[in-house]
Amino acid sequence: MKLLRFGPVGQERPGVLDADGAVRDLTGAVPDFAGPHVALETLSHLHDLNISALPLVADPGRIGACLGWVPNFICIGLNYAQHAAETGAATPKEPIVFNKVTSALAGPFDDLTLLRDSVATDWEVELGVVIGRPAQYVSEAKALSHVAGYCTLNDISERDWQKSRGGQWVKGKSGPGYGPIGPWLVTADEVPDPQALRLTLDLDGQRMQDSATSDMIFSVAEIIAYLSRFCLLMPGDIIATGTPSGVGMGMSPARYLKPGEIMEAEVEGLGRQRTQVRAAD
Amino acid sequence: MKLLRFGPVGQERPGVLDADGAVRDLTGAVPDFAGPHVALETLSHLHDLNISALPLVADPGRIGACLGWVPNFICIGLNYAQHAAETGAATPKEPIVFNKVTSALAGPFDDLTLLRDSVATDWEVELGVVIGRPAQYVSEAKALSHVAGYCTLNDISERDWQKSRGGQWVKGKSGPGYGPIGPWLVTADEVPDPQALRLTLDLDGQRMQDSATSDMIFSVAEIIAYLSRFCLLMPGDIIATGTPSGVGMGMSPARYLKPGEIMEAEVEGLGRQRTQVRAAD
Repeated sequence: MKLLRFGPVGQERPGVLDADGAVRDLTGAVPDFAGPHVALETLSHLHDLNISALPLVADPGRIGACLGWVPNFICIGLNYAQHAAETGAATPKEPIVFNKVTSALAGPFDDLTLLRDSVATDWEVELGVVIGRPAQYVSEAKALSHVAGYCTLNDISERDWQKSRGGQWVKGKSGPGYGPIGPWLVTADEVPDPQALRLTLDLDGQRMQDSATSDMIFSVAEIIAYLSRFCLLMPGDIIATGTPSGVGMGMSPARYLKPGEIMEAEVEGLGRQRTQVRAAD
Repeated sequence: MKLLRFGPVGQERPGVLDADGAVRDLTGAVPDFAGPHVALETLSHLHDLNISALPLVADPGRIGACLGWVPNFICIGLNYAQHAAETGAATPKEPIVFNKVTSALAGPFDDLTLLRDSVATDWEVELGVVIGRPAQYVSEAKALSHVAGYCTLNDISERDWQKSRGGQWVKGKSGPGYGPIGPWLVTADEVPDPQALRLTLDLDGQRMQDSATSDMIFSVAEIIAYLSRFCLLMPGDIIATGTPSGVGMGMSPARYLKPGEIMEAEVEGLGRQRTQVRAAD
């Protein structure tokens, strides 16, 4: 299933794409897609629905973030070897883990308003992984059975604040709108191999990132197993699994986002985002 | 008001202490203390209640975390000069910011089960600050008007994982139960000066930490104003404002938690926790 949320900010309703790609209304079938409501047992009830019998939404209007809120927005750093190299960092021996503040979540077509005083805002297309079952001390072999679904994600980053403000990266990762997800939460049954997905990011029509999840240093299963040794992952947690090479920081000279520019991030089968940059307000 | 949550894990109900220190049931008056339900406008309705007319809870049983869930569990590192010195770190020029995974939340009297393979688990009594109104670009002068309340907090930390596993601290901060909060969420009107509170932590009856929030490098108001330049703080976010000196890592030799030991963390006026350490399961 391709699950989505549609409507104005803060008033989104849950929906699902039908066989023709039209939106069907899931209001009443599920409260929202967020936290416990993306638990695998909840999603399994949706699989039993006759989607073509649900109310058709002729004009869904705005498509919101595919999750209404998340318990945690966890990110993996430097998880593609070429990206680690372009940033001048060594290839990590184990996953680098940091967080975005959860109010960074945004819809896939919402504008990005730059933070005041920001100087080096960069793009990062990533595979987003949404947890569907509590996970602690899980093995790599069983890790993917804890996944509810996948989505396209852009881990928008203010590089100066990430790197030069004390060493912990969260400061440069957390502005409101700095984490667009969606358009869809694609349930795990529709993604047989999360390590075989192409990722691209275009900036004003120019391809900046073009890679595949097969090039990850640590696979989705390894990441989940690894995290589950440090914490209890819960339904609705989202994990940004790292970005491939082609970010602005890696260019010579470095190239950062300017008002008016348009990012289009896409992960194969998970949908394409379009994010226009706006000046700070 | 001293707000609390009582009942078995996952079934807590909201309550409030009355003038005699007995628990009164707030079921029906507020869904829970979490996220939007600790917004200042919601809490203001509770102020209008006649507490002595609410149902008396003769035996509240277990006291849970004073927040059911949090959008973000944000922490400030090295915010007391003597603590920075004992860890061998320089005094920070601006706040160091990191996160705990939100499933670290626990009740103030719950046992702490050590994580498997952990080797250096440490205590950190802290003043917890709970946001009650969205905060972006707020000034220091107005920052405290965004606070819903305060609580005692223990930022339990696995030092080896915090320091030696890639540089980002979240890995050593996030085990389930590594963030006991409460017993109470004390509303901001009862804490006229958050910079005038004594903090103590006793380990098996021996005083390990004894300081005051007056010794913070960055005040609560400065922290909120600072964070609000990087992210949008939301109602229910909790901020751990840093720990004073006296942690196990700072001793010579370092001294870490062992099964059977009991931590008692307290912040003046905000209540005392009691956390017994258990071996990994």
